[in-house]
Amino acid sequence: MYGADGRRYLDCYNNIPSVGHCNPRVVDAIERQARILNVHSRYLDSVVVAYAERLLGTFREKFDQVIFTCTGSEANEQAIRIARMVARGKGMICTDLAYHGNTVAVDRVSPLFHHQRQMFTDVRSIPVPDLYRSAGGPQRDDLLETYLGKLESAIASLEEAGVGVAGIILCSVFANEGLPRVPPGFLSGVTERVHKAGGLVIADEVQAGFGRTGQMWGHELMGFVPDIVTLGKPMGNGYPIAGLIGRSEVFDAFRKKVFYFNTFAAAQVGAAAANAVLDEIEDRQLLRNARDVGEVIRTGLRELAKDHPIIGAIRGEGLWVGVDLVRNSGSKEPAVTEARHLVNQLRRSGILLSRMGEFDNVLKIRPPLVFSRADADELLAGIRQALRLL
Amino acid sequence: MYGADGRRYLDCYNNIPSVGHCNPRVVDAIERQARILNVHSRYLDSVVVAYAERLLGTFREKFDQVIFTCTGSEANEQAIRIARMVARGKGMICTDLAYHGNTVAVDRVSPLFHHQRQMFTDVRSIPVPDLYRSAGGPQRDDLLETYLGKLESAIASLEEAGVGVAGIILCSVFANEGLPRVPPGFLSGVTERVHKAGGLVIADEVQAGFGRTGQMWGHELMGFVPDIVTLGKPMGNGYPIAGLIGRSEVFDAFRKKVFYFNTFAAAQVGAAAANAVLDEIEDRQLLRNARDVGEVIRTGLRELAKDHPIIGAIRGEGLWVGVDLVRNSGSKEPAVTEARHLVNQLRRSGILLSRMGEFDNVLKIRPPLVFSRADADELLAGIRQALRLL
Repeated sequence: MYGADGRRYLDCYNNIPSVGHCNPRVVDAIERQARILNVHSRYLDSVVVAYAERLLGTFREKFDQVIFTCTGSEANEQAIRIARMVARGKGMICTDLAYHGNTVAVDRVSPLFHHQRQMFTDVRSIPVPDLYRSAGGPQRDDLLETYLGKLESAIASLEEAGVGVAGIILCSVFANEGLPRVPPGFLSGVTERVHKAGGLVIADEVQAGFGRTGQMWGHELMGFVPDIVTLGKPMGNGYPIAGLIGRSEVFDAFRKKVFYFNTFAAAQVGAAAANAVLDEIEDRQLLRNARDVGEVIRTGLRELAKDHPIIGAIRGEGLWVGVDLVRNSGSKEPAVTEARHLVNQLRRSGILLSRMGEFDNVLKIRPPLVFSRADADELLAGIRQALRLL
Repeated sequence: MYGADGRRYLDCYNNIPSVGHCNPRVVDAIERQARILNVHSRYLDSVVVAYAERLLGTFREKFDQVIFTCTGSEANEQAIRIARMVARGKGMICTDLAYHGNTVAVDRVSPLFHHQRQMFTDVRSIPVPDLYRSAGGPQRDDLLETYLGKLESAIASLEEAGVGVAGIILCSVFANEGLPRVPPGFLSGVTERVHKAGGLVIADEVQAGFGRTGQMWGHELMGFVPDIVTLGKPMGNGYPIAGLIGRSEVFDAFRKKVFYFNTFAAAQVGAAAANAVLDEIEDRQLLRNARDVGEVIRTGLRELAKDHPIIGAIRGEGLWVGVDLVRNSGSKEPAVTEARHLVNQLRRSGILLSRMGEFDNVLKIRPPLVFSRADADELLAGIRQALRLL
């Protein structure tokens, strides 16, 4: 990226232009289709249908329907609406630091930006276990049981309140929690308990999807099978297209009751852009690149950690890296100010990244998927230099 | 437009590509900007800021803020959210046949697609007077008073229920009601009463705005001053961009409480597309074209009406024309089947239009704003022929 003053920046932050800023193949696809036709889906068009079928083919599960929207917020809106129509109850469960979007209904399952913890009769939020940080509290061996117990309490609380369970919505990799390593079996345990309560599992893959983790979908990596998957950000590399994926038995119940129409969604240019994104992911083997270059970054960070005890833990998969910065490797006190200084120092030296996690002390490294080994070396050199200046 | 079989259609229906399908100036702007930068508004960019300022300059009112969204639904979501934060109460008023979008909160003020009239404690809907159809009921002289009385009852009902009034949301030209001619003073009377109750007036200009009626904004034509204006469909000629407009004193209260961020909104390509739309509207004098060609269509329809008593009333302004079809000019019985036959016959003869209004008996003629006099002649010839075949 370049500033208005012409200054060059190495983008280690932006997950929307995931096949690269101004990717020529995507821009060409947008331009070509925009010169032919771009109109709502009341007129069927093979460009849209072919993309929908191709997209469904990227899932291991037997999903057979797509509902297109323009934004991740809209996708999560409809997913929650569907869960409330199809499931046994109306109550939703989310995680403590979740952010699923900006509409009223979605805001209720997005505690991240609530100034004070708001209580809704039909929403419960649960904490996410972290093999690094939670280990100081409950014993590591108990972690799985302890945190599944918190989910069971949330389910019980919704049932006691008389609203029952519509489902759980969660980011497949717990992005806003800062990519915690969760105990093996946590997400399959969550799925089992939510299903038993009559609810659906909604995997929000707006951030985790389309190859970010080195797998096509975050739930593959995390080992659970959701009922609905929501998509967004990198889907059109910046062109506004998003959507939700599910099985007919789930979506049909919604379709029968609700006339859902979205003016700009399922139009041709969005489908053309999104199709070019899949072309790029496949032809340039970007999943493998995400795994390989992500590993270069993590290996480099592990080297740096030897000399810099501020690096408490290195997390993430593929081209999503979290660096948990601590003041003391024993107490794990979050190095919040230091994290802010590091991010600003890196910006001054031409490297863009950010922070995440409960304490905002986890470096958030999330570059476009075309990030190269040379880019990774430049990033590592920048971090080394910035750590020295701390 | 052309079908997959190459067949040519005269588009008299689509209001999104309002400066023309595949408008080269808009496509060029999209392509040019997509090759430079397209990323969220966390990085400020002059393309977005300049468009926001230009857009505000098209309003006569002293609006000084824009919030960009991707869809009209999202714009109406935030407008209602703002009203509920800023106004005295929480209750919303809408009109009986309103459709403002597809999110949960917006769906509650969109009775059009509710299978059965749903009752919400915090929503009331009111009927819209129609100088043609309502004249058979209350006396024409009483129409204004009668219908403003219905609004007063809705306000009283919300106050009695203890929720109070957050505001009213209405399409400035009552599109889904079928463009009824309302009594002079109706909308200023509505505004006065809603303000007196402590509520805001939200003008949904997703359909009425950007020159559709021959005026830039529907509320100018209809003679009222809203507190918030919501925009959408033709804003980017098919590129997903929408938004809401208001005064700082209204929006700031929201901004202080809510961190509103919309990934794809306020990015550069949407602003570039929308800017090119304004270029086209201005340089090609599309407001004047809408008035002139709209008048050609209405004049031609008035001629046809002399021989075809099925044409009960001709409505609308600019390039939005409604033709209320009746079986009997005395009883004004809606000619529903005939309207459907006409629309299908016209489609067979290569002319696309649709139906609207409470009974679906009003022909909906709403072509792109670049519709020419020759196009109007072709449309009129088609309608003449289809009426003969009825």
